[in-house]
Amino acid sequence: MAHAAAALELPDLAGIRAAHARIAQHVHRTPVMTCAAIDAEVGASLYFKCEHLQRIGAFKARGACNAVLSLDAAAARRGVVTHSSGNHGAALAYAAKRRGIPAWVVMPDNAPAVKQANVRRFGATVRLCAPTVAARESACAEVARDTGATLIHPFDDPRVIAGQGTAAVELLEAIDDLDAVIAPCGGGGLLSGTSIAATGIRRGIAIFGAEPANADDAARSFAAGALQPLAPTTTIADGLRTTLSARTLAALRAHVRAFGTCSEEAIVRAMRMMFERMKQVVEPSAAVPLACLLERTLDVEGKRVGVIVSGGNVDLDRLPWNAA
Amino acid sequence: MAHAAAALELPDLAGIRAAHARIAQHVHRTPVMTCAAIDAEVGASLYFKCEHLQRIGAFKARGACNAVLSLDAAAARRGVVTHSSGNHGAALAYAAKRRGIPAWVVMPDNAPAVKQANVRRFGATVRLCAPTVAARESACAEVARDTGATLIHPFDDPRVIAGQGTAAVELLEAIDDLDAVIAPCGGGGLLSGTSIAATGIRRGIAIFGAEPANADDAARSFAAGALQPLAPTTTIADGLRTTLSARTLAALRAHVRAFGTCSEEAIVRAMRMMFERMKQVVEPSAAVPLACLLERTLDVEGKRVGVIVSGGNVDLDRLPWNAA
Repeated sequence: MAHAAAALELPDLAGIRAAHARIAQHVHRTPVMTCAAIDAEVGASLYFKCEHLQRIGAFKARGACNAVLSLDAAAARRGVVTHSSGNHGAALAYAAKRRGIPAWVVMPDNAPAVKQANVRRFGATVRLCAPTVAARESACAEVARDTGATLIHPFDDPRVIAGQGTAAVELLEAIDDLDAVIAPCGGGGLLSGTSIAATGIRRGIAIFGAEPANADDAARSFAAGALQPLAPTTTIADGLRTTLSARTLAALRAHVRAFGTCSEEAIVRAMRMMFERMKQVVEPSAAVPLACLLERTLDVEGKRVGVIVSGGNVDLDRLPWNAA
Repeated sequence: MAHAAAALELPDLAGIRAAHARIAQHVHRTPVMTCAAIDAEVGASLYFKCEHLQRIGAFKARGACNAVLSLDAAAARRGVVTHSSGNHGAALAYAAKRRGIPAWVVMPDNAPAVKQANVRRFGATVRLCAPTVAARESACAEVARDTGATLIHPFDDPRVIAGQGTAAVELLEAIDDLDAVIAPCGGGGLLSGTSIAATGIRRGIAIFGAEPANADDAARSFAAGALQPLAPTTTIADGLRTTLSARTLAALRAHVRAFGTCSEEAIVRAMRMMFERMKQVVEPSAAVPLACLLERTLDVEGKRVGVIVSGGNVDLDRLPWNAA
C-alpha cells in the first residue's frame, strides 16, 4: 500500500509554487503572445505561453531543473541519468550543468547527430544503446548502478511534474481571467502539472489535453479510466508518442475536462500558421493544441484560452511543408 | 532653393516623437529580445527590437501609418497610392484600412500571388504593371491623376522616415544604456529615422548601417558623400536592393558612424541562427545586421548593441538553406 501510494505521489499547488521559486534563477519567465489573425481563425482569444523560448527551447527545462535542484547534496554529487532522444535529455544535461554535477543521457544509437550534440554541449555524457525499450532501460540501470546517479524520468516523477506546472503558474499570473488552458499530452507530465497548477489557482477553469489522432492513447486512457496501449504509430508530433503512466493518468482524471485530437494535416497547418502569422519557430508537438482548435475537436468558442507552446526544437532542414 | 530645401526635409526627434504618439493605437509596441547563445557568438550584448512581430510583419507599418494619419481630411478622402512589391505595399494598405480610406498599390505583373494577396487582404486595389521603373512610375502617376490619391513613397518622405524612427524611440526607452544601434539599409528610411531618433535621445550613441556586400551602394554613397549607382545585382536580402535618395543620404551622413557589409553566406547563416537559437522567423534583410557582426565588419566587441529586426515576411516554401 505504502509503495502504491508513493508510486502515485503527485505535487499540489504549493509544491508547484515551491518548484517555481526553486528554479527561478535557472529558467526564463517566458512571454505570453497573442495573435489577432489566429484568434479570428479559431473564434477565441488565445494566449500563447511561449515555452519554445525557454532554456533549451522547451518547457522540459523546468521539470529537469526542479528535479536536479531537489536532490540532496550527496545524491547530487553522484549525478543524474535519464533516457531520452529529445528535449528531456537536453533539459537534464542543462540542469546538471547549472548545478555542476555529472549527467548521463541514454539515447538510441539511431538518434540524429544534432540531438546528441544538443546533450553534449552542456557537458553531459551520451550513452548509445540499441533502439529498444529493453536496451534503453538496461543501459539506464547500468549507469545508475556503476555511478550511483539518480534516474530522472522524463515525466513519471512528482518533481518533474511540479516543474512543468510552473509554466501555468506564470501564465495565470500574466493573464488572470482565463476560461481554459490547453496543453499537448505525451507522457502527461506537462498536462498533469498544468492541470494541478491552473485548477489550484483558478477554480472552475477548464483544462484540455491535445493529442494527435494518430497517438490518442491519453484520450482513450482518460475516457476508460485505465491505461490503454498505443500501437506502434507514426505522427509528425514525435514528442507526443509516449504513453501515460499510472501517476499522470491519475492527475489527468482528477483535473482535466476533456481531450481533443487532430489530424496530421492539421498539425502541419497549425505549425505553419504559427510560423507565418506569429513568426514563431515551433516544433510539431507544440502546434497540436492549435491544430485541435482548427479542427474544432475542442470547443472554446468565444473563450479566453491559454495555450502552452511546448517547444521549438524542429529540424529546419525537414520542415513538414517542404517534405517531398 | 526653396524647392531643394523641401526636397531634403527631414524629421527631427520632436517630429519622430509626434509620429510615435500619432501611430500608437495602430501599431504594436514590439518586444525586445536577447539571446545568450548569439551574444556568445558575436562577443557583444545584443538587444533585438522585434519589428518582425509588428503589424503586417515589418517596421514599414510605422512609416505608412504616420504618413496616412498625417494627411488632412480632404487629401485622405482621395486615398493613397504607392509602388511596392514588398512590405511597404502591405503597410500602406493596412494604414489606409485603419483610416478607412482607399489605397492603390502598383506592383510588377511578375509579383508572387502571395504578395498581391497580402495587399488585397486589407482591401487595397492592386494595379499590375510591367516590371520596369518607367512602367511603375507612370502607373503610379496615372492612379494619382485619375483619383487624386496622394503618393506615399516607400522611404523618400519625411513622414515615412519619422514613422520608421519610432522603433528606435521604443528600443531606447526599453534599454536606456545602449552603446550602439544597427539597422539594415535599403532606401535608407529605417536607418535615417533610427539614426535621427537614437542620436537625438542619446548623444554619442554609435549608429551603424548594415548592407549585403552584393548591394553596398549605401556604404559607397556614404563614403563618397554622393549617391552612387547600384549595378543590377542579386542578393537574398531582396528588401535591401533599393538605393538611397538625396534625402536619406543627407540623414545618414549626419548621423551614422559607419556601414558594415556581409556575404550572402553570412546572411543565410545569421537568418538560420535567428530561427534556431531565437526561434524567430525573420526575412533575409532582417538578418543582415547579425550577418555583419558574424563577419566582424562592424566592431562592437563587448558593447551593448540594439539591433532592429526589420521584418519576418519570408517565403516558407523557399527557405534559403533548403534551396536546391
